Amino acid sequence: MNDTICALATAPGGALGIIRVSGSQSLEILSRVFRGSGDVQTFPANTIHYGHIKDGAEVIDEVMVSIFRAPHSYTGEDSVEISCHGSRYILNKVLELLIACGCRMAEPGEYTMRAYLNGKMDLSQAEAVADLIASTNKATHQMAMSQLRGNFSSQLAQLREQLLKLTSLLELELDFSDHEDLEFADRSELLEITKKIDTQITRLTHSFETGQALKQGIPVAIVGKTNVGKSTLLNALLKDDRAIVSDVHGTTRDTIEDTININGITFRFIDTAGIRQTSDEVEQIGISRTYAAIDKARIVLWMVDEEPSQEELNKIQLCSDNKKLIVVRNKIDQTENKPFIIVKIPLIEISAKHGLHLSDLEQAIYEAADIPTLQENDVIVTNARHYDALTRAHNHIQRVIDGLQIQLSGDLLSEDLRQALDTLAEITGGQITPNEVLGNIFTHFCVGK
Amino acid sequence: MNDTICALATAPGGALGIIRVSGSQSLEILSRVFRGSGDVQTFPANTIHYGHIKDGAEVIDEVMVSIFRAPHSYTGEDSVEISCHGSRYILNKVLELLIACGCRMAEPGEYTMRAYLNGKMDLSQAEAVADLIASTNKATHQMAMSQLRGNFSSQLAQLREQLLKLTSLLELELDFSDHEDLEFADRSELLEITKKIDTQITRLTHSFETGQALKQGIPVAIVGKTNVGKSTLLNALLKDDRAIVSDVHGTTRDTIEDTININGITFRFIDTAGIRQTSDEVEQIGISRTYAAIDKARIVLWMVDEEPSQEELNKIQLCSDNKKLIVVRNKIDQTENKPFIIVKIPLIEISAKHGLHLSDLEQAIYEAADIPTLQENDVIVTNARHYDALTRAHNHIQRVIDGLQIQLSGDLLSEDLRQALDTLAEITGGQITPNEVLGNIFTHFCVGK
Repeated sequence: MNDTICALATAPGGALGIIRVSGSQSLEILSRVFRGSGDVQTFPANTIHYGHIKDGAEVIDEVMVSIFRAPHSYTGEDSVEISCHGSRYILNKVLELLIACGCRMAEPGEYTMRAYLNGKMDLSQAEAVADLIASTNKATHQMAMSQLRGNFSSQLAQLREQLLKLTSLLELELDFSDHEDLEFADRSELLEITKKIDTQITRLTHSFETGQALKQGIPVAIVGKTNVGKSTLLNALLKDDRAIVSDVHGTTRDTIEDTININGITFRFIDTAGIRQTSDEVEQIGISRTYAAIDKARIVLWMVDEEPSQEELNKIQLCSDNKKLIVVRNKIDQTENKPFIIVKIPLIEISAKHGLHLSDLEQAIYEAADIPTLQENDVIVTNARHYDALTRAHNHIQRVIDGLQIQLSGDLLSEDLRQALDTLAEITGGQITPNEVLGNIFTHFCVGK
Repeated sequence: MNDTICALATAPGGALGIIRVSGSQSLEILSRVFRGSGDVQTFPANTIHYGHIKDGAEVIDEVMVSIFRAPHSYTGEDSVEISCHGSRYILNKVLELLIACGCRMAEPGEYTMRAYLNGKMDLSQAEAVADLIASTNKATHQMAMSQLRGNFSSQLAQLREQLLKLTSLLELELDFSDHEDLEFADRSELLEITKKIDTQITRLTHSFETGQALKQGIPVAIVGKTNVGKSTLLNALLKDDRAIVSDVHGTTRDTIEDTININGITFRFIDTAGIRQTSDEVEQIGISRTYAAIDKARIVLWMVDEEPSQEELNKIQLCSDNKKLIVVRNKIDQTENKPFIIVKIPLIEISAKHGLHLSDLEQAIYEAADIPTLQENDVIVTNARHYDALTRAHNHIQRVIDGLQIQLSGDLLSEDLRQALDTLAEITGGQITPNEVLGNIFTHFCVGK
């Protein structure tokens, strides 16, 4: 923490590349490599300066430097951002020069770790930074932003406050248990409070499933007989989505095969390549691959191009008992293809080839996902570390509830209460010793953040 | 030029992404999407402000904005840089929002084109910006930086000044040709001046070959009999180079197959894959592929692992008449492999397998390239458009020289002088009409610059 770190904060390859320097020596090191007008060490906070990065007499780049002073910076330390031309050669040269002048290359996530250690944000907020950078759609963005803005932290703070209140009520009961004339909160009241706390924790742990689905994409399987148009449909859905994303910005999108965005939610087609190659899953529905795909799916699109036989209908019914299932009747443009109805199962009629009614299908998929509409400040648990801590807290609270119900004395309950408190504190970092756990959390960050 | 443009200035995928906004409406548009402390439109130039980008009530990102005011900005216009979290989703959302508020997506190179049109730099300097961003080694970096800093522009200005002086001397001769008592610069003196100008232009056109070699890498062919260790050598050289580049910075280098850097110069192995597959080029030296590789090379590494036969020696001698040739004796670690000498041709003894004396070989390759050591302010022509203009200027000057020698009258020479002047002016942009040529120049830039 005493040394000054540097790293490239942007991806290499653009018009600009930003190099971040943070630590107590930032300005002194900058003064050795930057030539502009005025004395670097007297540059005021939050100002921008034009000049050159020089290695002796050699000009490495024409740059703009931004000055930040402790504690009003991302890390809470004196910091500098050097905006260079985005040549990898230049960026490497500037980094080499900074290192020669006393900087150390930052570890992944080290800027954010410093921000955490300097009290600029708690640990769950720091983790939200990585999620925010990785966010690829409206839902993941909103979850990360809500967490970064402290909504999760403040819910945890409320929970801890309620737990502390509970603890003090129990202690009061202990301290004054020989004063029979004093009134205490009775056990049923304590039980009520504890159950209320547990309900809130359980709501958070339950949100993890949604969080994971939103983060990784909601799994969808397309099944159906040969030639009903499964791959045509998939391509049509993918193309539909790509068109929306790539038009405006002129940026090339990374090819993420077989995921589509509907209303800001990512849907991921499971092992679709496998399904596409399978010659006829429905006929051979005993084969493990189709079962496996259906098994992993949250939503099954069952494609047909004619009224299903009684045998296929039985399979559809069976499948719909366990999964959200949508029957997709394809090829409605072909007149020999007659309409039909299936009882109690949603049926969408499309032409994958001609792109007819695809938006109806997308809407049906979206509704089948049954994702609660996220509000600005909703808290969804997306991080396995948080889920683990919440689950352990829930277990401790459950033991408190059990203890209260069998009239255990307060001192036997207090250990579980204390552990529940500590466990919740882990999430925001209250009980975490830097070296052990922190390294593990921040290594998942990219360098430069 | 009257509208306000926006674009991502960094590559997507880093911790940070910078969005640039430039144009007279920059601050007004920012004020509609940015919420921080204070009134955006009164933010002073060259200051940084913390806040949020909001789309109505929805927070899109927590950002820092940098304020630049005309004419003290890259483009010479009011400009804003928004430093966002590097999520593609967020960057797209911010761009969408800016567009909804009145920005237009910038065309490739449009920021630099505006800088040129607003007189912040001349055209050759603007072109140097693209070269600087694309620079991959010390040599290309130095050439681009020299050009960006105006060394080429000032040489051109000197040339134009000399041409103007020459023109006025000729005009003087014309105007006063009936005053026999007036003394003029005599024809031999004019011829001297013109030849001096032509020498300077020719030196620039000749530098283009070096410039191209430095920009694209100096072509090297490795030839030799089967099993002398050609691919082992290539891999050893590549590995040697990779190690230098990738150690310090922790960034993954794009795989540029088969190029190495020696003392800041890039060497490119031509069609080496082909050569590597060929079973025995020297035996079948009639085959076209080996010839083609040798033909394209500036340097040939002729590998042997024993004293060459008289037949092979003849081929080596023949080849060395036209190319820089280095005989590389491999496998010096094997005792049965006896030393030998070849008259008048450099011989380097190595073990590719054990990495012995590779630095000697690299030094020999570097020296064979015969690249003049670039000085800080050296001007090397690297741009085909400049080369073309200089060649045309040279042709006009040649006609002036011819005319002077056959005593043509001044008015017959002035047209070529004028055209030489115009042609040189094209390079810095003096004679270029925006719409026709500029678009073509700036489309080779990346978006955001």
